[in-house]
Amino acid sequence: MKKILFIGVLFLAIFERGLGQTLSSPDGDLLMTFSLQDNGTPTYQLNFKDAEVIKSSQLGFDLKNDEVDLMDGFTIADTQTSTFNNTWVPVWGEEKEIQNHYNELEVNLIQEETGREMLLRFRLFDDGLGFRYEFPQQDNLGHFVISDEKTQFALTGDHTAFWVPGDYDTQEYDFTESKLSEIRKHMEVAITDNVSQTSFSPTGVQTSLMMKTEDGLYINLHEAALINFPAMHLNLDDKSMVFESWLTPNVNGDKAFMLAPAETPWRTVMVSDDAREILASKITLNLNEPNKIEDTSWIKPMKYVGVWWEMITGKSSWAYTDDYSAVKLGVTDYEEAEPNGKHGATTSNVKKYIDFAAKHGFDGVLVEGWNIGWEDWFGHSKDYVFDFVTPYPDFDLEEVRDYAKSKGVEMIMHHETSGSVRNYERHMDEAYQLMKDNGYNAVKSGYVGDILPRGENHYSQWLVNHYQYALEKAADYQIMVNAHEAVRPTGICRTYPNLIGNESARGTEYQAFGGSKANHVTILPFTRLLGGPMDYTPGIFEMDLSKVNPENDSHVNSTLANQLALYVTMYSPLQMAADLPENYNRFMDAFQFIKDVAIDWDESIYLEAEPGDYITVARKEKGSENWFVGNVNGLEERTSEVEFDFLDEGKTYIATIYADGKDAHYKTNPQSYTIQKFAVDYKSKLKQMSAPGGGYAISIIPAEKSELKGLKKL
Amino acid sequence: MKKILFIGVLFLAIFERGLGQTLSSPDGDLLMTFSLQDNGTPTYQLNFKDAEVIKSSQLGFDLKNDEVDLMDGFTIADTQTSTFNNTWVPVWGEEKEIQNHYNELEVNLIQEETGREMLLRFRLFDDGLGFRYEFPQQDNLGHFVISDEKTQFALTGDHTAFWVPGDYDTQEYDFTESKLSEIRKHMEVAITDNVSQTSFSPTGVQTSLMMKTEDGLYINLHEAALINFPAMHLNLDDKSMVFESWLTPNVNGDKAFMLAPAETPWRTVMVSDDAREILASKITLNLNEPNKIEDTSWIKPMKYVGVWWEMITGKSSWAYTDDYSAVKLGVTDYEEAEPNGKHGATTSNVKKYIDFAAKHGFDGVLVEGWNIGWEDWFGHSKDYVFDFVTPYPDFDLEEVRDYAKSKGVEMIMHHETSGSVRNYERHMDEAYQLMKDNGYNAVKSGYVGDILPRGENHYSQWLVNHYQYALEKAADYQIMVNAHEAVRPTGICRTYPNLIGNESARGTEYQAFGGSKANHVTILPFTRLLGGPMDYTPGIFEMDLSKVNPENDSHVNSTLANQLALYVTMYSPLQMAADLPENYNRFMDAFQFIKDVAIDWDESIYLEAEPGDYITVARKEKGSENWFVGNVNGLEERTSEVEFDFLDEGKTYIATIYADGKDAHYKTNPQSYTIQKFAVDYKSKLKQMSAPGGGYAISIIPAEKSELKGLKKL
Repeated sequence: MKKILFIGVLFLAIFERGLGQTLSSPDGDLLMTFSLQDNGTPTYQLNFKDAEVIKSSQLGFDLKNDEVDLMDGFTIADTQTSTFNNTWVPVWGEEKEIQNHYNELEVNLIQEETGREMLLRFRLFDDGLGFRYEFPQQDNLGHFVISDEKTQFALTGDHTAFWVPGDYDTQEYDFTESKLSEIRKHMEVAITDNVSQTSFSPTGVQTSLMMKTEDGLYINLHEAALINFPAMHLNLDDKSMVFESWLTPNVNGDKAFMLAPAETPWRTVMVSDDAREILASKITLNLNEPNKIEDTSWIKPMKYVGVWWEMITGKSSWAYTDDYSAVKLGVTDYEEAEPNGKHGATTSNVKKYIDFAAKHGFDGVLVEGWNIGWEDWFGHSKDYVFDFVTPYPDFDLEEVRDYAKSKGVEMIMHHETSGSVRNYERHMDEAYQLMKDNGYNAVKSGYVGDILPRGENHYSQWLVNHYQYALEKAADYQIMVNAHEAVRPTGICRTYPNLIGNESARGTEYQAFGGSKANHVTILPFTRLLGGPMDYTPGIFEMDLSKVNPENDSHVNSTLANQLALYVTMYSPLQMAADLPENYNRFMDAFQFIKDVAIDWDESIYLEAEPGDYITVARKEKGSENWFVGNVNGLEERTSEVEFDFLDEGKTYIATIYADGKDAHYKTNPQSYTIQKFAVDYKSKLKQMSAPGGGYAISIIPAEKSELKGLKKL
Repeated sequence: MKKILFIGVLFLAIFERGLGQTLSSPDGDLLMTFSLQDNGTPTYQLNFKDAEVIKSSQLGFDLKNDEVDLMDGFTIADTQTSTFNNTWVPVWGEEKEIQNHYNELEVNLIQEETGREMLLRFRLFDDGLGFRYEFPQQDNLGHFVISDEKTQFALTGDHTAFWVPGDYDTQEYDFTESKLSEIRKHMEVAITDNVSQTSFSPTGVQTSLMMKTEDGLYINLHEAALINFPAMHLNLDDKSMVFESWLTPNVNGDKAFMLAPAETPWRTVMVSDDAREILASKITLNLNEPNKIEDTSWIKPMKYVGVWWEMITGKSSWAYTDDYSAVKLGVTDYEEAEPNGKHGATTSNVKKYIDFAAKHGFDGVLVEGWNIGWEDWFGHSKDYVFDFVTPYPDFDLEEVRDYAKSKGVEMIMHHETSGSVRNYERHMDEAYQLMKDNGYNAVKSGYVGDILPRGENHYSQWLVNHYQYALEKAADYQIMVNAHEAVRPTGICRTYPNLIGNESARGTEYQAFGGSKANHVTILPFTRLLGGPMDYTPGIFEMDLSKVNPENDSHVNSTLANQLALYVTMYSPLQMAADLPENYNRFMDAFQFIKDVAIDWDESIYLEAEPGDYITVARKEKGSENWFVGNVNGLEERTSEVEFDFLDEGKTYIATIYADGKDAHYKTNPQSYTIQKFAVDYKSKLKQMSAPGGGYAISIIPAEKSELKGLKKL
């Protein structure tokens, strides 16, 4: 049901000269005020339950090669308010249905000096604000270049923030928790090494930015529907506590090339006094356009294993040979080269993964390093780095294809671009066609290293345009995309649900590159995941990586139970069991949870949440009565208390609880876990300890009363 | 016949410690000496008949991010000499067969400090030198970045040069004739406006650079086989008269990204004491790889007319409507737009051109402005500027296709990219496929305006790579390419003979943009044309452009007879009759020459030549006994004296001479011409006056003696 109501100005919005025009959220808790300053600069201001959240903040743009910017001199030509309330059905997701309910204020501005029209559209939901700029078709504004977006987010105090350094090329940083005023102090330490990185300011941070006020208010700044525009960072004036949008520049320092009719992405401010509501917010999805893919029957959530962790840990290699420090596709003769003996993507090794996947009911097998070119694949600004279609001599594409098919397992393609996007676009049709010809329905793409065209950044308009091009072309081929190192997601998976995953943050691989902070996974759902699912690749059971590769002294900063919980807390329709089959074989009782856990849901209930400290969520499997609960814990031991009142009243269930052992600790004793079964119903309550860097996972399966015999009741 | 002889060092090359190693041309007139300086810097030196042409000149490169450049510290590991003599058959060209005869010296250098190998390959022809750098596959040199090429051309004096300003984005300049020492003085005036231009030095010039010494020696500097490398400019030290190569930079200022095994393009020095030998030189073609297209049956020279000059003069427009200053493909509704009433590419107007082409035996009709997007097509850094497949509402692709087919005329496609090469590459397959589906076998492509990706230049490695990509992909579709604003040709049409034309210089269009120098066409064959044919678009009969468009006060600086001669002097397998049909209808007697003249040849004989002053050439039509002679003249009236001894001894012919009238002058009386018929044979001689900016054209058709009755004998 789609319902648009135009309601009188009096009800939703009150316009008073000098005071501005107000818009309230459907539940009335949020109040947004739009007004023009004396010089005609548009501003907005946001209150939550009478407390100021965003102080009066400027809106506008500096333009390139234009005498008059889009900053001031505006008058209001017209305003319009409306309310919108519908529900829509996602192709996959945390919920069966999503409600999209907001009040809207549309402000039509005229810049008298230039005759230009600019429209501001505000949508106020119960859990936050979205607004964007729109430029209708008009005579006085056709092509224009944004040299700076000047959108402000004026905060009311020195809030606590969970931030990663602003960077044009990577988001793969650990989060720092600090006061806003301390960002500057921590910045240098926060900028850890990455193969491609371009930071820009000692107070520049990325979105989504999670904050908490001293009054217990949770505020999140992000964007939605980032299409053909550079990604937004935030730069803080740490005297006034005003964030200003900071767009990713192109090679010349310009930000966005615009052509009216056009609009910017939405800028979002989520607000709640309950952290769980931030996690449950659907603002980002709701601000995106509805699904544009007519037939979605081919889009299916997947649980997968892959030839990957053995390369990440250094046990195996992507490259086939060590003979050459540089290879030239079409010239280098791989048949003549001596194999290095540690190439991961061999036909026989891949078959082992296929066997493992088939045995344990996984949908897919990812193989990295199957195609020629990995000997010098990054760091050389190499244009023709991969062709995406030619396998190494020891990877038999047809044999693997046929073997996987015979086992009922799907192969997942891998397209590492090494940032060379012209080369990828040139080969894309052939590469996608090869996939379809061989039964691959999903691709993991990668953008490691500096971008070609040289001088462009991972998050500039040029690249944002590319990721979208790759996604839409994949849709034409009915291919699902899981793009790594691409720009952070902003809810585009609503419009193109074939975007089943992104990396765009510090994933599990960093546990093999020295380790991540043990509370990392208690922050990601408050930040990175608000824009869309992450291919976080959980499921590491062997935390001491020297046991996988004696030369790797990294430690995975997580307990085994925490790894299980991630399948529930890190929502994604694409979930990997990332560890090696031999490590799973050592812990088959725990591995059972990964086998059992669902990847698509009818309902999700956030039971407990505090960024940096803990998250507990219960999810009901799609089209089933099964529930799964996950808890991830921060740096301190904690006892979680949850009630099972989400269960059906009349039903009984068996709950299998995979929890940290008493002496578990992410650092010293990560593999200590317990597995216990209980009989539960909707009145059950659980007190469950989680170790530092730990957590627990629960499967709750309906059972006949007779099956519950001998089980303790919770 | 391919013949490679390895001949003893004594015969071809003499190596003496300290004095270096010498190589002589097959006829012995040219002598090249290679030697290492004391610091191990490679040098070469070139003599012609004992006179120095190039003084000892350094060779080498500066590398980026490398402590040791490829400049010095070299020792000779090995040298090898050989001679090569064969003939090959071009798919189209000035000659039926081309001889490729040279002596070669290969010098294998080792840089001791780094262990790197660099090879210098010198090929000495009778009419000049070609040399290049090669980097074999090796352990110590894989990926590297050339920050500067340091190849020198040390001249022996203050020669006269015919030059255009060095520029990374355009070659569309008038030539300046000056002493080398005066380049600096003339530079500012020489740099005329262009919609995309990036000059770099007050003494920077482009290749091919034509020079003449005080001793009457003609020297030409250029390059051959420019593949995956930036185009070379030349920068003069005007104290020492040393030119140094100046590569077109990428966006970061880097020049070339290299990956061994690799080689540079050839650097060429043509030398002769007879200017005609420069024009006849096949060095550039010979230094390119043989034809790589197996089936060439679809590659056919074409004479064509087109909907073009009416837009160039401003009489018509490319754009369909004036309603919008900016359009958005897929959003702008052209069906709703009001036509501007002067759109050239309407179905009915195109049919007129088809009728004209069919009536007068032309092979093709070019139509520009047929596809949507021209309303804001350049100057806006617009990414999605054209889709190359969607016609304007008033151009019926199918109707035009069927009409042309019914008339036996081929349509020529037009792909203006506006410099947005990512957009072109994204649409290329679909665009080429549309062509094949509709019987288009040739495309004129264009690169007007600044390049996207932004910051790249028309002649940087990124773009050179693009032009080659477009060309090779066109070959896959059996499509011929005529690329405008692309990099200057360097003989690649030997390897890819579907490259039937390029602009890459100041073409006839500039006669409608204020005019070109009247002797421009006496210089182009000595410079631009040495690399490959030019789509110069000759054949303008109405020199007063206000008669075409009252708002255009340009004057075409050429006599009508000169325009006819261009079909012979400006060799190209693609020749346009560029003027409007109505202008041709006024001069049908003169137009007969354009109808008659051949576009492919068995033989070409340069009869007279002096850069800047005059060129007279006789060419024998392919597979025919017909000859055509063309003479273009410079700024002073001149009487050409030519002998017809190129004709078959036993044969008689009718010569139709299209010449300037007595009082003709490019400025004051350009349309004064005479047409006279004579009987000629191999003993005939002609004295023929050419006016300033004038010339003459002759068709020489075998005739029975009986047909010669009444004709005066020459």
